[in-house]
Amino acid sequence: MKISPLQKARYEYSPKLPGMLRNGISDICVKEGEPTQSVADQDKIKALFPNTYGKKEITFQKGTNTSVAKKQVVGVILSGGQAPGGHNVVSGLYDALKAADRNNVLLGFRNGPSGLVEDDFVEFNDEFINEYRNTGGFDIIGSGRTKIETPEQFEAAAATAKKHGLTAVVIIGGDDSNTNAAVLAEYFAANKLGVQVIGCPKTIDGDLKNDDIECSFGFDTATKTYSELIGNIERDANSAKKYWHFVKVMGRSASHVALECALETQPNICLIGEEVAAKKMSLSQIADYIADSVAARAAKGMNFGVAIIPEGIVEFVPEFGTLIGEINELLAGEKTEEFNALPTWADKYAFIKKGLTPASFAVFDILPEAIQKQLFLERDPHGNVQVSLIESEKLFSALVADKLEQRRKEGKYNGKFKTQHHFFGYEGRCAFPSNFDADYCYSLGYNAFMLIQYGYTGYLSKVSNLSRPAEEWVAGGMPITKMMNMERRNGEDKPVIRKALVDLNGNPFKYFEAHRKEWSENTCFTFPGAIQYYGPTEVCDLTTRTLALEKGTMSLDD
Amino acid sequence: MKISPLQKARYEYSPKLPGMLRNGISDICVKEGEPTQSVADQDKIKALFPNTYGKKEITFQKGTNTSVAKKQVVGVILSGGQAPGGHNVVSGLYDALKAADRNNVLLGFRNGPSGLVEDDFVEFNDEFINEYRNTGGFDIIGSGRTKIETPEQFEAAAATAKKHGLTAVVIIGGDDSNTNAAVLAEYFAANKLGVQVIGCPKTIDGDLKNDDIECSFGFDTATKTYSELIGNIERDANSAKKYWHFVKVMGRSASHVALECALETQPNICLIGEEVAAKKMSLSQIADYIADSVAARAAKGMNFGVAIIPEGIVEFVPEFGTLIGEINELLAGEKTEEFNALPTWADKYAFIKKGLTPASFAVFDILPEAIQKQLFLERDPHGNVQVSLIESEKLFSALVADKLEQRRKEGKYNGKFKTQHHFFGYEGRCAFPSNFDADYCYSLGYNAFMLIQYGYTGYLSKVSNLSRPAEEWVAGGMPITKMMNMERRNGEDKPVIRKALVDLNGNPFKYFEAHRKEWSENTCFTFPGAIQYYGPTEVCDLTTRTLALEKGTMSLDD
Repeated sequence: MKISPLQKARYEYSPKLPGMLRNGISDICVKEGEPTQSVADQDKIKALFPNTYGKKEITFQKGTNTSVAKKQVVGVILSGGQAPGGHNVVSGLYDALKAADRNNVLLGFRNGPSGLVEDDFVEFNDEFINEYRNTGGFDIIGSGRTKIETPEQFEAAAATAKKHGLTAVVIIGGDDSNTNAAVLAEYFAANKLGVQVIGCPKTIDGDLKNDDIECSFGFDTATKTYSELIGNIERDANSAKKYWHFVKVMGRSASHVALECALETQPNICLIGEEVAAKKMSLSQIADYIADSVAARAAKGMNFGVAIIPEGIVEFVPEFGTLIGEINELLAGEKTEEFNALPTWADKYAFIKKGLTPASFAVFDILPEAIQKQLFLERDPHGNVQVSLIESEKLFSALVADKLEQRRKEGKYNGKFKTQHHFFGYEGRCAFPSNFDADYCYSLGYNAFMLIQYGYTGYLSKVSNLSRPAEEWVAGGMPITKMMNMERRNGEDKPVIRKALVDLNGNPFKYFEAHRKEWSENTCFTFPGAIQYYGPTEVCDLTTRTLALEKGTMSLDD
Repeated sequence: MKISPLQKARYEYSPKLPGMLRNGISDICVKEGEPTQSVADQDKIKALFPNTYGKKEITFQKGTNTSVAKKQVVGVILSGGQAPGGHNVVSGLYDALKAADRNNVLLGFRNGPSGLVEDDFVEFNDEFINEYRNTGGFDIIGSGRTKIETPEQFEAAAATAKKHGLTAVVIIGGDDSNTNAAVLAEYFAANKLGVQVIGCPKTIDGDLKNDDIECSFGFDTATKTYSELIGNIERDANSAKKYWHFVKVMGRSASHVALECALETQPNICLIGEEVAAKKMSLSQIADYIADSVAARAAKGMNFGVAIIPEGIVEFVPEFGTLIGEINELLAGEKTEEFNALPTWADKYAFIKKGLTPASFAVFDILPEAIQKQLFLERDPHGNVQVSLIESEKLFSALVADKLEQRRKEGKYNGKFKTQHHFFGYEGRCAFPSNFDADYCYSLGYNAFMLIQYGYTGYLSKVSNLSRPAEEWVAGGMPITKMMNMERRNGEDKPVIRKALVDLNGNPFKYFEAHRKEWSENTCFTFPGAIQYYGPTEVCDLTTRTLALEKGTMSLDD
């Protein structure tokens, strides 16, 4: 077998473009809006981007194409973690570029931005592109996490551009990659190299969004895949009635994925990192919050349930952050050797007790032993605790078990608490893009070419009005600098795209907040099922509840 | 939100019946075949089932219904682990029963066979049934693992039957549950209670199949769900190019699930328990087999891959079984206390080294420490090693890492080996049934009623020719005793349905065997994608490759 039946069928899918882009390249005109300002730190950002700052927002419309014809040689780069739809950005870009002029050239730089630096590339043709249409993954050219930052890297990138006669580079990536795209655009402009740079907003984490970018691509497909699995587990839990399932989902710096999955599946518990941070919740408080649900359900005879845990949750718990800091301090430099020389865990434990503040030791003390050991024994090359390795789903189920035993002794709980653990991340990053992501990504790529043709640089390809049918989508572009502010990174102030955390005053969280008590004590599970690419439009074309709630196509009362 | 858009849409799906059942109940006649014999131990089975043994195979056909009209009061029971499609067996049964006579009654006994013993039931009506059509899970009435075995249980079941005026009981379950169905049928027949018993073949494990039963329901949907995820992981592996993913899939006593997933996704490695047992492979040999693939790929610059590991694999490794036996012996009775009293792991280790045979100690010695400790420290209430808790995906990745380090020292390997681990089980047992399972299950239930109407008991509902379109399916019944033989269980000879292991001479394994070398050294991944319920028939209606290969609709050269 070379390809699956679904892959074969998906090759035939024609992604839907925004209505304004449907009449052919020669019938797309541009409408310029007002000049833009960065969201904060305007003077600093302007000083850093003198050639690309303050440009106008633009929108495309139906009308005669007024761009100046020239041969385009465009390079495309996939940057960072995989997200469903990346291949469609490339195919949309390719189709627009070839529709404008068959002699235009699209090059793919391999394995991320390093491909541009190292001139590792492939030239696309129809046959090549056709094997990747509407498919998941970034295997078309691979991806990578290199940033173009040093003078040598900039010069190498410029040399590659010169060698191929590049007129533009399209960078498909998350907030960091698009920040890098803006820096590269400024470099090319400052040096008058005649190479435009356009970014496309990608990340399953959903944390690249703002007033202009309604959502990053891949979030829809990834959350639908995780929600499929969580729904299946819920149905299993409600059939077998004997397990509490603790499901960790990807998302380290923001809890958008967990929240969307909760809106799709109505689990008993979903932790939201941003809320934990805002309320300065302790591990003990979180465990009590979950134990309350377990106990309330047990009192009704329901010794089962489902809890969604965001991957990065412990990093939002203030006391845990303090503990990690103290541990890193405690074992800094030579002290690691002293610690390692202690013969038994009991000796090490005494050393830890002596070295931590009483507050942090109290936090350490309630952790399950396996995690206590992990904190001290599995450290990164710099000697730091590897927070990302902590299995937070197991941490919380263990803490909850302790709470329940305590309550049992106090006569407040008399249930059973058997657990199963799951982690969903890699399962969703390379799924076949949903129709929404297939359409959105194809439009982003197609639109990126329009921005190139009209001479823009330092822009993010922007497609909006996404909670409506594709016909009504609005295509255009926004200067990346508009989304930037200055932030402290590794001890330096850096211009970066502001990361979007879950807004505790936003409708998605408010909807969750209004329903979660009912969900926690009763069984209100909903089962989204597998992503459908065919069938009724409400089954196969709708995007996330997060977007529907943000844009008002779903109300808080629904 | 009460239900998901897909669930709403699936309510409207009309499952396809075999052509011969499509003309209405009054147009279904029966054709009896030859009397049957059990597959082995005929005299013993006949002696144990004097009233139900040796009955004829039967097939339904289009023709005038000749059954004797009577009011039917039927009870239905879901038994054992969840499998997608159980709700459709119930709805097919309900529809046939109500189509025959609106006054007929269908009762659901709750939480497995214990519902019949304890008279815990619900009466179905249209409204109730309609909320479960074409949905996953067993939540309609719950499931359970009780067997009806003791005289008291039989008497209680008979009392429940008498109270409700039951004319028949339908038991939906796996090999053990259907064995129990045959025993119950014999009990009711021997005591002339006028209650028929019909079984339906369920299990995602795929190990309930034989000359008569082409496959158990749920296997199709569960393996499609796991294959979706494995395909997504493969695409991620091939995009990121930095991890080997070890994926454990459900299936303790047979490796059908792993094999089907391998046929769907073409991973680099798939272990098959039956082959490991037949070749008497050691842990070290298996680890070398995997390491060969890792090394061959690394030599080509591919430091990534995917390996499928069946959940029960270690139980197939002869030397591991011996080790487990010795450990159980070593810690039997008072020796556990002696062992527990040893202060450190080093002391315990010395005790273990002294107590095991050199051969078993050698096996123990190569295990990762976490698993060594698990074998000795986490034991069941009888003091036995809990083999099912062993994380075989982590065991093998650790053993492979050791092998690779050894090869590195010998200058034979120079790659990177970073791993990720996954376990897929609960994710697939309650998915919305695929069209195949929805159709098959509905047909099994509909057909079960026909067997009841025609007065049969001790039969399994049988629908065959399943690799062809539903129109061509053949409906009928087969005496359960025909599938039985005597096996040793807990020190007693018991009549049981013979469990189907992977046949190393069968086409599914032969196909895998013919391709696996190519798959292991190259990247031949295929990406099945999510189960589709709508769309082109080759995308949404086809069943497993296992069945296609067994029935010849897919050839070894495909």
